[in-house]
Amino acid sequence: MQVGMVGLGKMGMNMGRRLLRKGHLVVAYNRTSERTEQLAKEGAIATYSLKELVNSLAPPRVLWLMLPAGAVVEEHIEQAFELLSEDDILIEGGNTYYKDDIRRSAALAPKGIHYVDVGVSGGIWGLEKGYCLMVGGDLHIFYYLEPIFKSLASSEGYLYCGDTGAGHYVKMIHNGIEYAMMQAYAEGFELMEASPYAKNFDYSQIARLWNRGSVIRSWLLELAERAFASDPKLSKIKGYVEDSGEGRWTVAEAVESSVPAPVITMSLFERFRSRRENTFSNRLLSALRREFGGHQVKIAHRE
Amino acid sequence: MQVGMVGLGKMGMNMGRRLLRKGHLVVAYNRTSERTEQLAKEGAIATYSLKELVNSLAPPRVLWLMLPAGAVVEEHIEQAFELLSEDDILIEGGNTYYKDDIRRSAALAPKGIHYVDVGVSGGIWGLEKGYCLMVGGDLHIFYYLEPIFKSLASSEGYLYCGDTGAGHYVKMIHNGIEYAMMQAYAEGFELMEASPYAKNFDYSQIARLWNRGSVIRSWLLELAERAFASDPKLSKIKGYVEDSGEGRWTVAEAVESSVPAPVITMSLFERFRSRRENTFSNRLLSALRREFGGHQVKIAHRE
Repeated sequence: MQVGMVGLGKMGMNMGRRLLRKGHLVVAYNRTSERTEQLAKEGAIATYSLKELVNSLAPPRVLWLMLPAGAVVEEHIEQAFELLSEDDILIEGGNTYYKDDIRRSAALAPKGIHYVDVGVSGGIWGLEKGYCLMVGGDLHIFYYLEPIFKSLASSEGYLYCGDTGAGHYVKMIHNGIEYAMMQAYAEGFELMEASPYAKNFDYSQIARLWNRGSVIRSWLLELAERAFASDPKLSKIKGYVEDSGEGRWTVAEAVESSVPAPVITMSLFERFRSRRENTFSNRLLSALRREFGGHQVKIAHRE
Repeated sequence: MQVGMVGLGKMGMNMGRRLLRKGHLVVAYNRTSERTEQLAKEGAIATYSLKELVNSLAPPRVLWLMLPAGAVVEEHIEQAFELLSEDDILIEGGNTYYKDDIRRSAALAPKGIHYVDVGVSGGIWGLEKGYCLMVGGDLHIFYYLEPIFKSLASSEGYLYCGDTGAGHYVKMIHNGIEYAMMQAYAEGFELMEASPYAKNFDYSQIARLWNRGSVIRSWLLELAERAFASDPKLSKIKGYVEDSGEGRWTVAEAVESSVPAPVITMSLFERFRSRRENTFSNRLLSALRREFGGHQVKIAHRE
């Protein structure tokens, strides 16, 4: 099929590559042209504006947006609304809040443009192993696009999840679970590192062992094995943990639907905590301990 | 090798079977003789007391205890202390608190009996796929026993973790991580079930999808796929979640070593919560809301 790939970051570039390798025609556009030209060398048709990309595709056009979440996506969708025609399909493959999918789909509908939301998991490994695709939107559009999904996905690694937003909803929950699984492993290894046995523990070997027949074997644990193998105490890394938004949406969803999700929530908060030192809350705790109990507090030194 | 298998529950029975299939000589003893006779039909030598089992083994004897955690293990170790001789080996393969390993090993040492602690993961799947074995104790005893470990384990699924207790320590952490991973998935699926898309979600298919290339793929998620396939809303199951002790030890270890383990701790507490309805704390919360805010409370109906 013909696919217009908009955004050639870590994800979009590799997805474009995978589509090319599977024999699709890929028309590429990226804000900075170096990456477009890189993909053109690998067989894509290079374009240098969204308009040029749209004009290079045969109708009904298929545009796949693979952009950093936020305002950039919104701008591109507004532009696409002007450029696309009836029966064209706009696929939003980035990390989008599912309520934005619903709003955008409704805005595009009067012009007959179909909006499809796809949650994509698999990271930098997707190029070789295939991605995991969670798809929301109209079912008949899903069937129309199935050859693309099939090419991008790992074996059977795509699923129609439901109406508009369902794909990103399932991806959001996936990421919430991911946060908590990562936190689970992280706490376990930190406990081991604080144990009397720590000096003899080889965490790469323990991760490797657990991946051989234990209940907690997983792909994340395989990644941990790799990480420990190259840096046994992770001393080259600073424990400052970013988040990319989907964990926050999961927690907001828990609040909105009155569903307790303590472990997912706590995992997000632990990431926030990792970015803060000598916090206001901890200074208050110390101050209160001194006030009521005369406990000694550590005094901050002036810089 | 010759192995005396003491305790033929779900785990011990299958481990005995696996050792038999791999050509070891298994001398079996279980409190109730039906299970001993079952394993005898499959090639084991049946014995009907710990003394008979010990006498049926050639020195240096290898005893593998696979008993329910707690007093039963302690009793058998006390008996074994009387029955065993210098250079015999006592393997404790159940769920034991690592500090009990250290205490027992020290108690057996004066008589020259070697104590080895082995954490065993793999559940009912271990018979076919092999177990994951975490071993603590003297390194030269580990090497002596290696043919047994190799036969029981999945490919490369055994590891010498360190001094006495290290095997059960690593197993304890494994179980703590397991609690939190399970809780992570559980919260994610509950959020989906509360979502506007719930009526179209097929959780078995979503679990299956996530196992195909996503970041959260794991063996636990494969088990979830199976569970949802046979009971899509898990309506045949009551959400009353037991725990078997190792989660508690992990949390106690976190407290003792001043290491924050919020997600593992919360997962344990969620299990406690699952067993309590109309709790005292919730009645107090309702009472306080009424006291300060005049909020309506639900009145309990007399039985």
